[in-house]
Amino acid sequence: MAQTIAGPEIERLIQLLARLPGLGPRSARRAALHLIGRREQLLGPLADALAVARERITVCSACGNVDTSDPCTICRDPSRDPAIIVVVEGVSDLWALERAGAIRAGYHVLGGVLSPLDGVRPEHLSLDSLVARAGRPETKELILALSATVDGQTTAHYVTELVRHLPVTVTRLAHGVPIGGELDYLDEGTLTAALRQRTPF
Amino acid sequence: MAQTIAGPEIERLIQLLARLPGLGPRSARRAALHLIGRREQLLGPLADALAVARERITVCSACGNVDTSDPCTICRDPSRDPAIIVVVEGVSDLWALERAGAIRAGYHVLGGVLSPLDGVRPEHLSLDSLVARAGRPETKELILALSATVDGQTTAHYVTELVRHLPVTVTRLAHGVPIGGELDYLDEGTLTAALRQRTPF
Ligand SMILES: [Zn+2]
Ligand SMILES: [Zn+2]
Repeated sequence: MAQTIAGPEIERLIQLLARLPGLGPRSARRAALHLIGRREQLLGPLADALAVARERITVCSACGNVDTSDPCTICRDPSRDPAIIVVVEGVSDLWALERAGAIRAGYHVLGGVLSPLDGVRPEHLSLDSLVARAGRPETKELILALSATVDGQTTAHYVTELVRHLPVTVTRLAHGVPIGGELDYLDEGTLTAALRQRTPF
Repeated sequence: MAQTIAGPEIERLIQLLARLPGLGPRSARRAALHLIGRREQLLGPLADALAVARERITVCSACGNVDTSDPCTICRDPSRDPAIIVVVEGVSDLWALERAGAIRAGYHVLGGVLSPLDGVRPEHLSLDSLVARAGRPETKELILALSATVDGQTTAHYVTELVRHLPVTVTRLAHGVPIGGELDYLDEGTLTAALRQRTPF
């Protein structure tokens, strides 16, 4: 094994890199060598960036977003509509929606979707805090921006049931043809939904 | 962009992670969130491992291997045959050969192969130090353990010419059928080489 050659420090680095999504043992070795060969340009800066992240980045106790402040920048933003909470599976979905720039509202990060196969149960998600936020007088609408997968839709139904007793409207993202998408690549469910939800031209 | 949402610290981390081989911008975002969500188990340890690597890991001035000492553990190992130098493109190849455990010799890491297309010229490789090592009285054989690609074989020929005036034998890895490899997946060149270099059974 590599540790008998290059020492435990490199082996430790490889093992940690291999735990990143998208990197396996083989690509972790390549990444470690890439870093070691670029000490000033990459290894050092990445070590510093991780140290800063460890010190300063935190999870917003209100919405689950990651930021250097708690509550996060979004939760403290007075220009956002406090009546709307966009419910997402993860922070990457929040980032994607913010990149789209289509709405100036609050968010709620569930931290996953219900998945019997993967053992994700309601107690693993931020559901209690969502219900609490949904019950506040200023909250008027929850937009469920969850994946159009079986697990995503199961979660959407579960959330809807949880807040059924509250005077809050629950909506979800429209199904339809992706912009730039070719019709004959789309499944029948999407085409049916796109037809049903057709809009005036 | 994400920096307007989550702050420059996260954006910086994502940009650095995206420079690792195997990670693009999208997977770098996922990796950053994965790290931020595992501060104690992964982000902190990786920050520490990189800081240790920055402090302690160096490139062996003799052979080009990476290690916490210079000369490296391999170069200082008295049980290795000093007559043989295995010439490799990169440290990952050295690691692969050491994992195979097939030879106890020295190494020489070229740091690449000649590639007109990628602009890799002789002055970018550790060729001067290789010729110097090949010229020492104890050196009897260079084993060229380079890829069986056009660039790898071009480099092998170039090295051979460089040391032609020296009393050193130059060999290269055999071509043949990989163990577990199915014949009908192999190209004709490999099959021809495997036939020519057939061994008694
Ligand atoms: Zn927040
Ligand atoms: Zn060495």
